[in-house]
Amino acid sequence: MAPRTPDRPTRRGRPGYDRREILDVAVDAFNEHGYDATSVGLLAERLGLSKSALYHHFTAKEQILELAVGEALDALEAVLDDPAAAQGAAADQLEHVLSGAVHVLVEKLPYVTLLLRVRGNTEVERAALARRRAFDNRVQRIVAAAIEDGSLRSDVDPHVVERLLFGMINSIVEWYRPDRSQSAHDLAHDVLAVALEGLRA
Amino acid sequence: MAPRTPDRPTRRGRPGYDRREILDVAVDAFNEHGYDATSVGLLAERLGLSKSALYHHFTAKEQILELAVGEALDALEAVLDDPAAAQGAAADQLEHVLSGAVHVLVEKLPYVTLLLRVRGNTEVERAALARRRAFDNRVQRIVAAAIEDGSLRSDVDPHVVERLLFGMINSIVEWYRPDRSQSAHDLAHDVLAVALEGLRA
Repeated sequence: MAPRTPDRPTRRGRPGYDRREILDVAVDAFNEHGYDATSVGLLAERLGLSKSALYHHFTAKEQILELAVGEALDALEAVLDDPAAAQGAAADQLEHVLSGAVHVLVEKLPYVTLLLRVRGNTEVERAALARRRAFDNRVQRIVAAAIEDGSLRSDVDPHVVERLLFGMINSIVEWYRPDRSQSAHDLAHDVLAVALEGLRA
Repeated sequence: MAPRTPDRPTRRGRPGYDRREILDVAVDAFNEHGYDATSVGLLAERLGLSKSALYHHFTAKEQILELAVGEALDALEAVLDDPAAAQGAAADQLEHVLSGAVHVLVEKLPYVTLLLRVRGNTEVERAALARRRAFDNRVQRIVAAAIEDGSLRSDVDPHVVERLLFGMINSIVEWYRPDRSQSAHDLAHDVLAVALEGLRA
């Protein structure tokens, strides 16, 4: 038996890879080449596995996509489901959601990147888009509630504001580099400075 | 000679289309199918022209791309070159630039959409990316100057802030519909409310 080390979990399934590692490699390949252009053969090649060994872990390429975008969506929805997202003035709830979304984006950067590129070509992709829309609708309701309870200014359109805020947050995947960019904490600070408090001194 | 009407300029070149109309059709096709996947044959078919008639107007597909992204870049750079972008407190200059960029985006939506999808696969695309970087650098200098002169808060990173602001503005191309969405004026108002004044009441 191979020795265990504390920072390396026991591997399951076929020797060499567990599902988590395969998922990480597959998500990188999807982001690099595009999901449609990434064949199971290419994934197997990247992993140094045979296609049949890969099919031991996953029934189809689409199952990998489903798990990957599901992981990003689960994390984003957990931010909204957190009790802090339902406490206090609605503007404070919005602050919690924006900050939490930035943290999810940084912690699961390749997974969120993949999610944001989904265009609805398959059933799995359409289901992911539906969950994204439901997320956006929940945030829009918080923005509308914050305008209603007077904690956000009332001269803006809540739908437009939600799109602008998440347009800003989602654009982070285009340039954020974990090894060179600021921490999630500092990034969330700057997002909130722009979005809620305003940049003007 | 065909009669002229006031709202229809005289057509130049081959009868049936002028360069402007061809450019509009080509930009829509590039945005729909992707630049690489759009052949000159497909463009000619969409226009109901022969390929040789199309080559009467343009020497190559890449020349159409160059003119199209050039038009978007010219308009964005004109916002920075406007005297108002160099007057007053730097925060006011930034306000002028953000508002002007939103107006350009709405007025030239398909052209800016195409520009934002350029990935640098050809010489023309790399030149467009270089002009985008130069634009971003000029805006970053305005943000840095505004932090310096005290008109913007000093606890943010000017590079990150510039990226967040233009991430927000550029994301508008993903959902803006000229026939259904609010006017450029109202949209610019909401962008400035988020970006400079802050959403908190």
